[in-house]
Amino acid sequence: MTHPFFKNYGPILISEILKYLDIKINNLKVDKKIFDIKDLYSSNDSDITFYHSKKYKEIAKNTNASFCITTESLKNDLPKNCNSIIVENVLVSVSKLTSKFYPESINDNFDETAILISETKYKDKIKFGKNVLIGDNVNFGSNCSIGHNSIIEKNVNIGNNCSIGSNTIIRNTIIKDNIRILDGCVIGKHGFGFFPINNQNLRYPHIGIVIIEDNCEIGCGATIDRGSMSNTVIGKNTYLDNQIHIAHNVKIGQNSIIAGQVGIAGSSIIGNNVKIGGQAGISGHLKIGNNVEIGGGSGVIRNIPDNTKVMGYPAKNIRDFLRDNK
Amino acid sequence: MTHPFFKNYGPILISEILKYLDIKINNLKVDKKIFDIKDLYSSNDSDITFYHSKKYKEIAKNTNASFCITTESLKNDLPKNCNSIIVENVLVSVSKLTSKFYPESINDNFDETAILISETKYKDKIKFGKNVLIGDNVNFGSNCSIGHNSIIEKNVNIGNNCSIGSNTIIRNTIIKDNIRILDGCVIGKHGFGFFPINNQNLRYPHIGIVIIEDNCEIGCGATIDRGSMSNTVIGKNTYLDNQIHIAHNVKIGQNSIIAGQVGIAGSSIIGNNVKIGGQAGISGHLKIGNNVEIGGGSGVIRNIPDNTKVMGYPAKNIRDFLRDNK
Amino acid sequence: MTHPFFKNYGPILISEILKYLDIKINNLKVDKKIFDIKDLYSSNDSDITFYHSKKYKEIAKNTNASFCITTESLKNDLPKNCNSIIVENVLVSVSKLTSKFYPESINDNFDETAILISETKYKDKIKFGKNVLIGDNVNFGSNCSIGHNSIIEKNVNIGNNCSIGSNTIIRNTIIKDNIRILDGCVIGKHGFGFFPINNQNLRYPHIGIVIIEDNCEIGCGATIDRGSMSNTVIGKNTYLDNQIHIAHNVKIGQNSIIAGQVGIAGSSIIGNNVKIGGQAGISGHLKIGNNVEIGGGSGVIRNIPDNTKVMGYPAKNIRDFLRDNK
Repeated sequence: MTHPFFKNYGPILISEILKYLDIKINNLKVDKKIFDIKDLYSSNDSDITFYHSKKYKEIAKNTNASFCITTESLKNDLPKNCNSIIVENVLVSVSKLTSKFYPESINDNFDETAILISETKYKDKIKFGKNVLIGDNVNFGSNCSIGHNSIIEKNVNIGNNCSIGSNTIIRNTIIKDNIRILDGCVIGKHGFGFFPINNQNLRYPHIGIVIIEDNCEIGCGATIDRGSMSNTVIGKNTYLDNQIHIAHNVKIGQNSIIAGQVGIAGSSIIGNNVKIGGQAGISGHLKIGNNVEIGGGSGVIRNIPDNTKVMGYPAKNIRDFLRDNK
Repeated sequence: MTHPFFKNYGPILISEILKYLDIKINNLKVDKKIFDIKDLYSSNDSDITFYHSKKYKEIAKNTNASFCITTESLKNDLPKNCNSIIVENVLVSVSKLTSKFYPESINDNFDETAILISETKYKDKIKFGKNVLIGDNVNFGSNCSIGHNSIIEKNVNIGNNCSIGSNTIIRNTIIKDNIRILDGCVIGKHGFGFFPINNQNLRYPHIGIVIIEDNCEIGCGATIDRGSMSNTVIGKNTYLDNQIHIAHNVKIGQNSIIAGQVGIAGSSIIGNNVKIGGQAGISGHLKIGNNVEIGGGSGVIRNIPDNTKVMGYPAKNIRDFLRDNK
Repeated sequence: MTHPFFKNYGPILISEILKYLDIKINNLKVDKKIFDIKDLYSSNDSDITFYHSKKYKEIAKNTNASFCITTESLKNDLPKNCNSIIVENVLVSVSKLTSKFYPESINDNFDETAILISETKYKDKIKFGKNVLIGDNVNFGSNCSIGHNSIIEKNVNIGNNCSIGSNTIIRNTIIKDNIRILDGCVIGKHGFGFFPINNQNLRYPHIGIVIIEDNCEIGCGATIDRGSMSNTVIGKNTYLDNQIHIAHNVKIGQNSIIAGQVGIAGSSIIGNNVKIGGQAGISGHLKIGNNVEIGGGSGVIRNIPDNTKVMGYPAKNIRDFLRDNK
């Protein structure tokens, strides 16, 4: 699958990749063309992948990638057909190489391609306010509206019956049908992912996008960051209140209700029919089951199984919370 | 009283109302004209009201409405002069009927009536920045200013000596005298009220407005939602810091001070001379007394009596909080 | 040192100052010219200072100011060369007098001097979007960009290689080199400082500025308030995620990482290499050491020494927090 938005500057010869990463390999037989960088699971013979944690051992054993950026201590988990490229810090090298394949994913400066909607083909198709800007590679379905001063930057697909508020900025996002996005949102910018360096941090390229499924509502002042290697997804018919922050790679299920000022940290996965009270926070890399209810103000720092009501900081079963706080 | 902003499309014949709600009543004698939908207390003989919770039993017994949407189990609390209309879900039916009386309250898309202030009669009366937009039914007192890119959408009354910042959006709001609203606020949009349905949630119409009394200051990035059946009110000389969220129907008293990133959930009532520390959250439908102090970061989930200092999550007496957390 | 941004309307004769503060002094020998109002430490013979709390006794004893606004009970700590001016409320008097020296610091209305960048000398030097506005006394280094609808209000210095997003507002701020400020920020407005009065609060003048050091990134929707008597500072290579609020006078060190929705209250000082998790809050006037880690959702209400990991509300040692919350 080609990337929907970011141009892939591959193929890149493996010899160039090694040179770029400052790596010497003695037993390199053929100077193969590498077409893409992908995770262990999605890679095929023409891709390079990466393996940085024992957590992924089972997937690593079966990867189809022909090259894998990894460490001395992990390399033996890889299959024979996969050549290991040993580096000191896997994710830093992956980050550098991803920027090589997708240089445009690293730059989140304002979109210089954006022009007034009245100068585009959408001027007769969309209902729009004053000073609305549209970038390259933007598409709209029918019956949409965009409020004053909003900027639909490059790489946005909007479906049918969608209404975008005023002062809202969207890029690198797929918005399906019957969706309302209110005022003052910023959707699709890169996440807060980088490698701390005491001088100038190294930004991780974010080649993921944001996907908002049918019938959602996104409240005022939301920030929804696009994913790094995967996507950020808001499921069907999920409603977000005002001032919510959704970090990169977060996936929220269907029919969920998220109240004001909630924050969900990177890579957490939220189930279907989940209710989250105002100001609750959910740490990164967690799994929140289906039909979970999280009380307002809670701080969730552990996974939550299906059909559970929790509250508190750290969040625990709501009966325990109320008993402990009579 | 006629509604200050939303057009009432009544009167509607009771036969039409019943048909619209898909209800059959056998003993309907006269096909009365109904002029408005109101709460139990405010209704008079020409209105329809609703009764959905035993909490309101005493008011229900004395309502003057001639019709009341209610349930089989509640109907006997109503007086003789009030005809009960039995439905499965009172609030869903009320929501549908309110949309019938006030169809414009359901649509919060951007205001298409807004034009550049330089094309309005205010161009010589107001000090204004670039790209300021003004909608229908907007009024200003004397000595006001509006910053760049701000949008005063339809249905806004602004008093004397008010300053509105830049990038701010206001609709359905009464702003009295000597008020400062800073940059990037969204004031007067509908609240986060809807009936969850696994497919496409049903939005509750918000026919309330926002009222900001004299001498208030509203910090940057505030979201203040208008009320559903009542109004959202900020009392005289109350100051809000940055990034605050005030939900629908909230009423805040006079001389209160609310620090940054506080959130107040729907329908809570805050007294006079209340101080709320940064990031504190207040659950919905609570009553916070006069002269209350709420420590920063607190999560308030119960009513708080007058003259009390609380802190913690859940918030408790501040002495207990400090003793328990030495 | 002259103030970089606000014009000093001094010198003011001490007789005029006393009249303005409604104070009588019998033993005033010479009607001295006063050039500035400064803190106890920075004042010299031609300045007036103030002393309002025993906390500053040691500094008070050595001040070089020739006049000091203070109280009856504190005046004896001052040196002989310093004439005490006795008032009821020191900070209210200081506030009034500061407004006299720096009247422009009290007004945070929108910047009327701002014009389209295409009408300024920067039109060929800066890459810019649509509708970008530039106020008086704004300077740019080389290789900078500014997104659509952003407003660089008066009194802003921007260094080299800086990128400002869209819908962002900046005033009274020094931005050094290699800095990215994302969309929808408001930087440099006055802090939430005022004296509560039951009628119309008295605003404290904010004569401080915001300084953002090299290589920083400021996420979307940030509000960073300028200082009152000192500056608000973000240290080198510090990264802020989305929706963060930094109050007046806060100083953050170098190489720090602050996750989404964090709030830091007024005058707190944060060290170098500090990591703060999402939604954490830090009370005012605290000192957070170097190499501190603060868990997401924490509420910090006490100073934290160097090299400490804390979590909880109130925040405590993370081992204690995890042990107490198994």
